[in-house]
Amino acid sequence: MSVQQIYKGRIVDLRLEDVDLPGGRSVKLEVVHHPGAAAIVAVDDRNEVVVIRQLRHAAGGFIWEVPAGTLAPGEAPAACARRELREEAGLLAGQWTALGSILTTPGFCDERIHLFLARGLSESAQQLDDDEVLDVGRIPMRRALEMVQDGAIEDAKSIAALHRAAVALGLLR
Amino acid sequence: MSVQQIYKGRIVDLRLEDVDLPGGRSVKLEVVHHPGAAAIVAVDDRNEVVVIRQLRHAAGGFIWEVPAGTLAPGEAPAACARRELREEAGLLAGQWTALGSILTTPGFCDERIHLFLARGLSESAQQLDDDEVLDVGRIPMRRALEMVQDGAIEDAKSIAALHRAAVALGLLR
Repeated sequence: MSVQQIYKGRIVDLRLEDVDLPGGRSVKLEVVHHPGAAAIVAVDDRNEVVVIRQLRHAAGGFIWEVPAGTLAPGEAPAACARRELREEAGLLAGQWTALGSILTTPGFCDERIHLFLARGLSESAQQLDDDEVLDVGRIPMRRALEMVQDGAIEDAKSIAALHRAAVALGLLR
Repeated sequence: MSVQQIYKGRIVDLRLEDVDLPGGRSVKLEVVHHPGAAAIVAVDDRNEVVVIRQLRHAAGGFIWEVPAGTLAPGEAPAACARRELREEAGLLAGQWTALGSILTTPGFCDERIHLFLARGLSESAQQLDDDEVLDVGRIPMRRALEMVQDGAIEDAKSIAALHRAAVALGLLR
């Protein structure tokens, strides 16, 4: 496989790769390499879930998401999830359940997001990155699932995470 | 907003953009511009859903997905959905329901995927692109939802599409 580096930035690492297909043909594919990420469905004792309203330039404005962030170099997904819940939402969690992972855009990018359910929440101190603009709130899980269905929540990782968490919690059957 | 074009390829259009944040600060963001796409949950009269097993280089092998594809220039999402269901799965559908849209990776890419539920299926002729390597099958919707939960289906658009379709069909409450 021949690989040509096009650009290596802070998040995006774009390469042009010659890929052999079954049957002997070969295609040149644009591949964005991404370090991966973790996303957290944090649910409190009243079945309310932590949501953030975040400014996303690529999305053209503020969107609803669950807390999430990119893996630091060498960082384990579970450690990233704990760090991001603390930094973005100012929360610690006593119980963590892994909910598998998802591929956001397998057609052109290798990003894998590891999903977690966090319970037993307690307050800590929020610590946002310089370029993060967001508000944190809590809404009932039932309301979050309605927002997935009516389109108010459009973020794919948040939809997948809320779905898996709701089934794990017995809220969707 | 200042924009610097880094690369313009077949799918990926990468730009470096100076973005003003609330409060007067400015950040330089890597943004992948994408034409958008459509994805289809096609369900037959026995409540079986059309799934494809597709080779995805960026994912490292074959993955489970629902039929989907990129919007052609100027193409409406509903027209793209009809075209992709025919080309990828060799199927026509008599009833179409829009299920809103999702953002796959709002942190660095503006891709929006429009989701559709298709029913009233009839056979047509499959017509794959040169670089598409995939098999088409049908599985019960209940089984597809199990595969979302146990991690066999990892593709984010497929998870979001199956979730919204299952709620629309009354299969998830």
